[in-house]
Amino acid sequence: MANCIVAQSGGPTSVINSSVVGILKGNKDLGAYDKVYAGLNGIEGILNGNIIDLSNFSDDEIEEFRYTPSSGLGSCRYKMKNIEESTEEYDKLIDILKANNIKAFFYVGGNDSMDTIAKLGKYAKLKNIDINFIGIPKTIDNDLMYTDHTPGFASAAKFIATTTLETYLDASVYINNGIFILETMGRDTGWLAAAACMARINNKPAADFIYLPEVVFDVETFLIDVRKKFQEQNKVFIVVSEGIKNKEGKFLSEIPQFGDDKFGHAQLGGIGNYLKNLIVNSGITTRVKALELGILQRCAMHCASKTDLDEAFNAGYSGIKYSLENKSGYMVAIKRESNSPYKTSHFLIEADKVANKVKYFPVELVNEKGNHIKEEALEYFLPLIEGSPSIKFKDNLPKYKVIR
Amino acid sequence: MANCIVAQSGGPTSVINSSVVGILKGNKDLGAYDKVYAGLNGIEGILNGNIIDLSNFSDDEIEEFRYTPSSGLGSCRYKMKNIEESTEEYDKLIDILKANNIKAFFYVGGNDSMDTIAKLGKYAKLKNIDINFIGIPKTIDNDLMYTDHTPGFASAAKFIATTTLETYLDASVYINNGIFILETMGRDTGWLAAAACMARINNKPAADFIYLPEVVFDVETFLIDVRKKFQEQNKVFIVVSEGIKNKEGKFLSEIPQFGDDKFGHAQLGGIGNYLKNLIVNSGITTRVKALELGILQRCAMHCASKTDLDEAFNAGYSGIKYSLENKSGYMVAIKRESNSPYKTSHFLIEADKVANKVKYFPVELVNEKGNHIKEEALEYFLPLIEGSPSIKFKDNLPKYKVIR
Repeated sequence: MANCIVAQSGGPTSVINSSVVGILKGNKDLGAYDKVYAGLNGIEGILNGNIIDLSNFSDDEIEEFRYTPSSGLGSCRYKMKNIEESTEEYDKLIDILKANNIKAFFYVGGNDSMDTIAKLGKYAKLKNIDINFIGIPKTIDNDLMYTDHTPGFASAAKFIATTTLETYLDASVYINNGIFILETMGRDTGWLAAAACMARINNKPAADFIYLPEVVFDVETFLIDVRKKFQEQNKVFIVVSEGIKNKEGKFLSEIPQFGDDKFGHAQLGGIGNYLKNLIVNSGITTRVKALELGILQRCAMHCASKTDLDEAFNAGYSGIKYSLENKSGYMVAIKRESNSPYKTSHFLIEADKVANKVKYFPVELVNEKGNHIKEEALEYFLPLIEGSPSIKFKDNLPKYKVIR
Repeated sequence: MANCIVAQSGGPTSVINSSVVGILKGNKDLGAYDKVYAGLNGIEGILNGNIIDLSNFSDDEIEEFRYTPSSGLGSCRYKMKNIEESTEEYDKLIDILKANNIKAFFYVGGNDSMDTIAKLGKYAKLKNIDINFIGIPKTIDNDLMYTDHTPGFASAAKFIATTTLETYLDASVYINNGIFILETMGRDTGWLAAAACMARINNKPAADFIYLPEVVFDVETFLIDVRKKFQEQNKVFIVVSEGIKNKEGKFLSEIPQFGDDKFGHAQLGGIGNYLKNLIVNSGITTRVKALELGILQRCAMHCASKTDLDEAFNAGYSGIKYSLENKSGYMVAIKRESNSPYKTSHFLIEADKVANKVKYFPVELVNEKGNHIKEEALEYFLPLIEGSPSIKFKDNLPKYKVIR
């Protein structure tokens, strides 16, 4: 019987290993392949021959791995050359796969990984090679086209919303509070920052303002809004996406600071510190704190969404099914069937339609002033964050499984 | 029947509201006082007459408040003048307490709050005023003398250890990884950074190095150690306390950067960025990331320790008991009776013995090289982080109660 292989690529998420476990379970249930191999460090590792056999791990180990955040198989950021340019690495990779009698290749990743799947699928078809290449979606950015959402996003969104609630409470304790800025990831899209709209206290959003890359950021309007809000309530809570841009389309975090540094040194730190300096220099208040969530938001398994974990698992499981139908060059996508009860189904989308494209946060869900998210967005977000993971504990800390 | 009052002071923690709920429950069980008032924003608020009656809240609301992070009664940083200097604010405060028929005053706080309790206790004794002043310990820094540990610390420690595990996994996914620096709070003491030693994978600590303010930080030794470790394993994970100092006793985070800024501007950001620049400038690698946990570590109720929550509750409960014994000018302290089973008891310590003193992390628990924590420290830390809180959820996010 033939074998299959799975590898991970791009930035880690909390649930990326669940997709691997879904593939293992799907394979077991359907008796699809003899062995499930794993390529370590994505394409890059496979090209170096770094392949392990996942059947060597016990059920208990696999179950622990399911609830372990970050890319347990290792990752890479490796872009394959166009076929027209050179097929050397294609041939090398396919030789390695053939040598291991591999008939299905699953790549868990985002945009660039779908580019790889599209290219490999195309090359295999061209050369009549009997290996199916299937992409399993993964990215906290939620920016893949056609799929309703991407596994990994909801857990990051849940962490951001939880953290918004908690830091809001922390930033509100004094008689004279200041301004707090929470910086999320999201260089091109605002899905992650927008998710902070779920954080509500007494039925009102905790954040006073939410800024996304999809809306042109105007410094003057920002300062007018913040000054007014600070005068009204003596505190302001701001959530901002790292990727906000000015009307010239330039990232604000890359614009050299004005005001406090006459030598024009680029500002260290991200957009949070940039906004902080703007506020301080404008004289609104000197009590401004900026906090960057950084990689915490993509690895906080202790605050993950069970729905997200299950969906990552199911996407992998479906991948096995689709491979048996001889599909190749596709990504498994999620369709939302209904919100209450929340129900989804899968379909396949050509990987080259997903690759190198970006799904933006819908501007219809941004308020008129461009500085907050409409309440309707809750319908989209809330079903995604349901439930908590069944993490195992050791010494009262999560027991995570390192398999490399 | 007489009344009592409770107020909170200093930096928030995840469990500070549990102490308030402990006072409410203790009062109910023991029938100690007619009403439990709360002073909003600590001493500062009480002096402004901001007092509310906690009996207006339902049992459900109080239960939600118990699992709400951050100082729900508001806080202040207010240092009372010495009695010798002026008694004006003492008299004003006592008039307000008398007007409300208050016989016991509970102050949940750290070092400065115990200074307030000591001064008020002393003044009441001097003037024969029949009000008992009792301090309830609270600080994530764990730096109060005499008590085995302080409520608030364990939940922060648990978040730090959990986050160390998760960011370690995230920072290890590529073939060529870089150096990751996790910055914790702890300006004077290293308890929080040291708690990262609990984060272990395959029975070995996740962090390669842990740096505390209690050990003189030598830049050259640091760079030699990091360079060696990076050559060995192609990645280094560092945990550092914000308060590390050089041999002159100067905070490293306050030393102007050398190397990349010839104009001598002080470095923006904390010690994490400082170490990052040191490493990059020394040529070890340019792939260095620094992450500051910031206020997340003191408000992450979603990752709190049940033991910590219970101990905060019990400290408040005991406060009621001690007040009935007419104790005044004391802080409730925790004694560790045994580790397995973990058992503690309470005793009283004069608040002026605690005030303005600092309990340092024991250097006997630091390794010989001064760059890590000995395994023995686990005995101290691990029992403190047991169990998870019974948070209520709304829309799959923690339901927190704002009572102000």
